[in-house]
Amino acid sequence: MKKPSPTKDKVIQAAVNLFFQKGYHATSVRDIAKEAEINISLISYYFEGKQGLFEAIVIDHLETKLNLLQDCHGESFHTTIKKILYYKMDNYQLACFVHREMMIDSTFLREVLVTYIAKEDYLWASILFQVEDVSDLSYEQEMKLIQLKGMLQAPFTTPWNQRDERRTKDAKRYFVETYTAHINRCYGADSHQ
Amino acid sequence: MKKPSPTKDKVIQAAVNLFFQKGYHATSVRDIAKEAEINISLISYYFEGKQGLFEAIVIDHLETKLNLLQDCHGESFHTTIKKILYYKMDNYQLACFVHREMMIDSTFLREVLVTYIAKEDYLWASILFQVEDVSDLSYEQEMKLIQLKGMLQAPFTTPWNQRDERRTKDAKRYFVETYTAHINRCYGADSHQ
Repeated sequence: MKKPSPTKDKVIQAAVNLFFQKGYHATSVRDIAKEAEINISLISYYFEGKQGLFEAIVIDHLETKLNLLQDCHGESFHTTIKKILYYKMDNYQLACFVHREMMIDSTFLREVLVTYIAKEDYLWASILFQVEDVSDLSYEQEMKLIQLKGMLQAPFTTPWNQRDERRTKDAKRYFVETYTAHINRCYGADSHQ
Repeated sequence: MKKPSPTKDKVIQAAVNLFFQKGYHATSVRDIAKEAEINISLISYYFEGKQGLFEAIVIDHLETKLNLLQDCHGESFHTTIKKILYYKMDNYQLACFVHREMMIDSTFLREVLVTYIAKEDYLWASILFQVEDVSDLSYEQEMKLIQLKGMLQAPFTTPWNQRDERRTKDAKRYFVETYTAHINRCYGADSHQ
């Protein structure tokens, strides 16, 4: 996804939409080509097929989240949570399907875990507990980190809780503010602020 | 799944195992029959195929969780959380794959939502906020309920956080106790105890 092109973008949009609705396995390259209104051969040309397209989308999403988290260095815990939630709300379908697909064990997932997810855990550990290394976390802190991730995932892993109203800009802001407030209360004592 | 039979149990165990590892769509009836070491025709006979088997497993899991929650009536929030976590840890693969598959929209999922999930939300609302009707929840309370569900999901939706050591009985107890303590701290002021 280095060189942006209108065709590539159309393919990515179509794939995100279908992976979200039907799941990765139930979506065919043909479905994606049809939805994107492009010739099926272009998916091979740009992404080397469905798996390549999937990996490109997942890596781009994880990289963006990681950069966002890195850019929050020095910000408060509260602000960091809000920025992550805004990004995920703005990319709702993407956030939902990546969470889901990352629950199935695969070689690709393992590669992603040791790079992106490990770095993400490291950044959260440093934000929450001022710890330099995830392996320095106490068992209690490790549990708190899993729970924080659960809270940040929940709006995207329990889609039935989502109301359409939240899609408007004001509703989105109200959602993020309210949602962040309680997380902040749970973790306030742990994080610097 | 009303009449228990060794063959049915073998099929269910095999299906849970494969749905967990590979996902519903990537698992064939043939895979399940092979794993269960039974004749493929028995899956049609007992469950009317893969979808029927899947639905029977999901409904049984959701019913068990719901009964567990109902049986906790009068117990403290702390005890309720622990019982739910023990059940999910004892049925780890099942809990993981049901969370994942319930993220894909389908007619079956919608039916399940209006029955089991709505009832589950109602019970949590009553435990947490002493509210009789989920529609009486304030927006803040609704957000807290989503977050609680996220915390209860996280060990089963982020499998990479699971360590093998937690599978032993003592490790499981230590995990549940520690995991519950922080949830209790976040929600302590809201629930009766």
